[in-house]
Amino acid sequence: MDYAKIIRDLAAEVQPLYGQGKVADYIPELGKVPPRQFGLCLQLNDGISHEFGDSRTKFSIQSISKVFALSKAFGLLGEELWQRVGVEPSGNAFNSLMQLEYEKGIPRNPLINAGALVVTDILVSKFENPKAEILRYLRQLAGTEDIHFNKQVAESERKTGYRNFALAYFLKSFGNLKNEVEQVLDVYFHQCSIEMTCFELANAMQIFSQHGLEPHSGERLLSSSETKRLNAVMQTCGFYDEAGEFTFAVGLPGKSGVGGGIAALLPGQYSIAVWSPELNKKGNSVLGMKALELFTTMTGSSVF
Amino acid sequence: MDYAKIIRDLAAEVQPLYGQGKVADYIPELGKVPPRQFGLCLQLNDGISHEFGDSRTKFSIQSISKVFALSKAFGLLGEELWQRVGVEPSGNAFNSLMQLEYEKGIPRNPLINAGALVVTDILVSKFENPKAEILRYLRQLAGTEDIHFNKQVAESERKTGYRNFALAYFLKSFGNLKNEVEQVLDVYFHQCSIEMTCFELANAMQIFSQHGLEPHSGERLLSSSETKRLNAVMQTCGFYDEAGEFTFAVGLPGKSGVGGGIAALLPGQYSIAVWSPELNKKGNSVLGMKALELFTTMTGSSVF
Amino acid sequence: MDYAKIIRDLAAEVQPLYGQGKVADYIPELGKVPPRQFGLCLQLNDGISHEFGDSRTKFSIQSISKVFALSKAFGLLGEELWQRVGVEPSGNAFNSLMQLEYEKGIPRNPLINAGALVVTDILVSKFENPKAEILRYLRQLAGTEDIHFNKQVAESERKTGYRNFALAYFLKSFGNLKNEVEQVLDVYFHQCSIEMTCFELANAMQIFSQHGLEPHSGERLLSSSETKRLNAVMQTCGFYDEAGEFTFAVGLPGKSGVGGGIAALLPGQYSIAVWSPELNKKGNSVLGMKALELFTTMTGSSVF
Amino acid sequence: MDYAKIIRDLAAEVQPLYGQGKVADYIPELGKVPPRQFGLCLQLNDGISHEFGDSRTKFSIQSISKVFALSKAFGLLGEELWQRVGVEPSGNAFNSLMQLEYEKGIPRNPLINAGALVVTDILVSKFENPKAEILRYLRQLAGTEDIHFNKQVAESERKTGYRNFALAYFLKSFGNLKNEVEQVLDVYFHQCSIEMTCFELANAMQIFSQHGLEPHSGERLLSSSETKRLNAVMQTCGFYDEAGEFTFAVGLPGKSGVGGGIAALLPGQYSIAVWSPELNKKGNSVLGMKALELFTTMTGSSVF
Repeated sequence: MDYAKIIRDLAAEVQPLYGQGKVADYIPELGKVPPRQFGLCLQLNDGISHEFGDSRTKFSIQSISKVFALSKAFGLLGEELWQRVGVEPSGNAFNSLMQLEYEKGIPRNPLINAGALVVTDILVSKFENPKAEILRYLRQLAGTEDIHFNKQVAESERKTGYRNFALAYFLKSFGNLKNEVEQVLDVYFHQCSIEMTCFELANAMQIFSQHGLEPHSGERLLSSSETKRLNAVMQTCGFYDEAGEFTFAVGLPGKSGVGGGIAALLPGQYSIAVWSPELNKKGNSVLGMKALELFTTMTGSSVF
Repeated sequence: MDYAKIIRDLAAEVQPLYGQGKVADYIPELGKVPPRQFGLCLQLNDGISHEFGDSRTKFSIQSISKVFALSKAFGLLGEELWQRVGVEPSGNAFNSLMQLEYEKGIPRNPLINAGALVVTDILVSKFENPKAEILRYLRQLAGTEDIHFNKQVAESERKTGYRNFALAYFLKSFGNLKNEVEQVLDVYFHQCSIEMTCFELANAMQIFSQHGLEPHSGERLLSSSETKRLNAVMQTCGFYDEAGEFTFAVGLPGKSGVGGGIAALLPGQYSIAVWSPELNKKGNSVLGMKALELFTTMTGSSVF
Repeated sequence: MDYAKIIRDLAAEVQPLYGQGKVADYIPELGKVPPRQFGLCLQLNDGISHEFGDSRTKFSIQSISKVFALSKAFGLLGEELWQRVGVEPSGNAFNSLMQLEYEKGIPRNPLINAGALVVTDILVSKFENPKAEILRYLRQLAGTEDIHFNKQVAESERKTGYRNFALAYFLKSFGNLKNEVEQVLDVYFHQCSIEMTCFELANAMQIFSQHGLEPHSGERLLSSSETKRLNAVMQTCGFYDEAGEFTFAVGLPGKSGVGGGIAALLPGQYSIAVWSPELNKKGNSVLGMKALELFTTMTGSSVF
Repeated sequence: MDYAKIIRDLAAEVQPLYGQGKVADYIPELGKVPPRQFGLCLQLNDGISHEFGDSRTKFSIQSISKVFALSKAFGLLGEELWQRVGVEPSGNAFNSLMQLEYEKGIPRNPLINAGALVVTDILVSKFENPKAEILRYLRQLAGTEDIHFNKQVAESERKTGYRNFALAYFLKSFGNLKNEVEQVLDVYFHQCSIEMTCFELANAMQIFSQHGLEPHSGERLLSSSETKRLNAVMQTCGFYDEAGEFTFAVGLPGKSGVGGGIAALLPGQYSIAVWSPELNKKGNSVLGMKALELFTTMTGSSVF
């Protein structure tokens, strides 16, 4: 398949969408990102990659970090993990807190904030230095040492992240947060502040398209069956209140972040990362969503 | 792949689960079904089928009928359909009515009852005789004339289906039901009362694994892109409050019914139907869920 | 106290509010009522009454009928009634259906629609001809035979009251409606269609200010303790989502209706009815609410 | 009226209820209180008081403190207060957080925790030393200097009050908490830890039965109209999810606390405080509730 041409074509097709979204600005650091940027990296399982545009520009991966933290925690705990967090989609954003109340502090899935906080709590329990460990893991997955926290972003999140504090204390009130709220949030905000490029992100996602094999070292980090489960969770829960829409339009497991990045994969075939800072109302990248929809349509490579 | 052996093995493995579930008994007709039955039919896209156990026993397809009604309505209306019903998973069952209220009468997706009523309403608007049309369509898909309503089941549902009446009137209050409540429900209850065998069901599901091509006549009923969308909806919304669990454990688009049937498919490869009347607490067949989980694990054929 | 002057003064003060509200028009019969009307009748327990403006004009009492139906059902069943309906305020309108679901079909109180349907269901169970009985009861309370259903209003409600049908079927699905939905709603819509004047309404409310004594016949219809309970329910639940606001501003037990009427009382002292068709966003009469607020302020006669 | 006899009689009648409730034990300090205690103080507006049992034993007033904080804040801000907190009852406890979300951070009323936190936030904004000010105010109302915080209780609440932290951060995320969460909660936990006797509490409640006049100094702290509003709020919102039940059974404005105290009043007549540590499932004192119900029945002094 002529991936180069497909990517060139879809990139042309998404350009007119500039201006339809809005860069996240709830913290100053994100608001300063120039909006008209678009990067894409397709990483085939056979090692070949195709890139386009700003594919080597660092951006804040934000919620995309949740899938990496999840895969780390799942690797450590195995099935036991699902006693503290569910695998069901969360319905609409509106009633997230209510569901947490109704379901006695068990978040619906690990990719909503409440669930991601539980996952981070697990990492905090397991590691002396969870922040260093998360960085180490991401660096291994991406095959580069050049991955760092943005401490200013983490600090800004900490200063304004009242809702995450509320969620964490709420989880704590149900006994589903074992460590101190301040400590868990410190790790969580750092994890979300990690900066990566599309190229690095596509590489890091290879573990999910390679059935658990980390391709740079050849090390098996997850079993094939575990990877299948994580991909399933991404498919049903990876896109906030747009999980159905994304499954519907794109048909790949993946995860988006408010930094404008989206990472996705076709099991056994490829991983892909796109980035463009302008977000739609549901918090997903406008150009990124469209690019992935076009990509799976043009390549006929949806899981469906 | 030695499908025969795989099916034999998994059938042996699910036998010990008899007794763990409970046959639906909210209407007498369903309650009378002998519990210890298990049937399976795998229909490969190349035309070969594998069957096991009670694969030629008729059972009430119930909610599985929703995907066929949906595919019919989608074929008729195209994208316009999504103005009246969403594609997002519905979160937990508990707040279904609340969500309908919060979202002004637009059901979250076409596979929850509220959404299925809207789909049936569309068929009622489009056809002089919607019940006959639904039967005709199912017969074409399954490649047999021997598909009928169970009028007693339909009548029992009508007599006890107060919650469906409530939903229908609620939709009507939002203007999202165009026809009379009584008429829509009559068609809906008949549609749910259809009886099929695993063999027939697996055949009828071929349209989704064959990308929209009806294999018996060779007629194209849906475009490849439309089929992808329907498969995506089944993946995210097909299993009530267990959609995530099913995606997670099985990894195939599909739909279950309280009659104990489950129909699923791997796009481009096969369709599969299992049936066993005992249900778990969420209303899905105990042996059926396990059988499909084992099948995708043994064949390595999850979409993930 | 110079009630005549107080009423004249407050009537002058509410005049400028004409135009701030909107006449209910969800059925044509209500929409046709000329908006600029205002009537008031104060009925003192000692037998003296004071009237102002359109106090002898008939209007649709709508939800005000709920307190009379409730008092009738309570008189018949006593404390047993509270097994089928609660006495707690319902919070906001938004989650009414959810609460019904969460609380397994027990409406929060008898003055929201769901609760009023249960009350009507009780009357349907108790009487051969519940509609005639309701009329008879109202006529006794008001001391006049000139009280009738408006059959056109009842019919219009039946034709468009989808939400009430939804509620009734929902209650039925929980087993908290013993009679047929159609029959209960027929009585309910008739009950709501009753037309009365402020003068008649103030008289009918005397039973609540007279501690259960029906003043025209001198018959005791409710015990003093039962009346106290009904007054308490009116205080906390009588004004939809504005119960707190009304308690806060007016401080009297009472009940409003979308026909623009409000009936209230000061136990041991007086009953009062006001009417003006223009409603605020919460469905309560604009001039009526203000008039009652001014009345209790000017007379210093809030229960608080 | 022979109040002494009435109190003696009702005290005898509530004794058999010992053992039906459970002392709050979410913090050790409350759990250590001996359960079989019962005190009552009736303070008539004319200055005479009647006491029974443990009426001079100090107990933790907990949520009863909310009405005093509210009256202080209302005195300072006037009507402006209602821009930050509503006056409607909150429906069931279950959806408190949801309502806060749905209503954009405006708590339904000042007597649920969320609303009380906003009230405390106002006091923190207004005073250099809000804790000292609250004590000073309570001492003035109660007419004694012997009112203190229990610092151990306050500290225990701080250590375990995760849900209050969650609420405070949630309010903060909506901008409806102006000061630092830690500071507001410190004041709040101290306010709740105040210890008073029934005698002191009944005295402090006099301001509400005396229409805003503080009887010991003769100082007017609230206007008559403001007092009426506060009494109305207590009536509709003072008893958690049992506000309707209390209004229904007792018919007085009041407020309960998990320390087992209940304070109530009849405007223009008397204030009353009861205390008994065993709580029913809704968190209200078993003997206290019954005692007040009997008291208003025996004296015929409900507001209704």
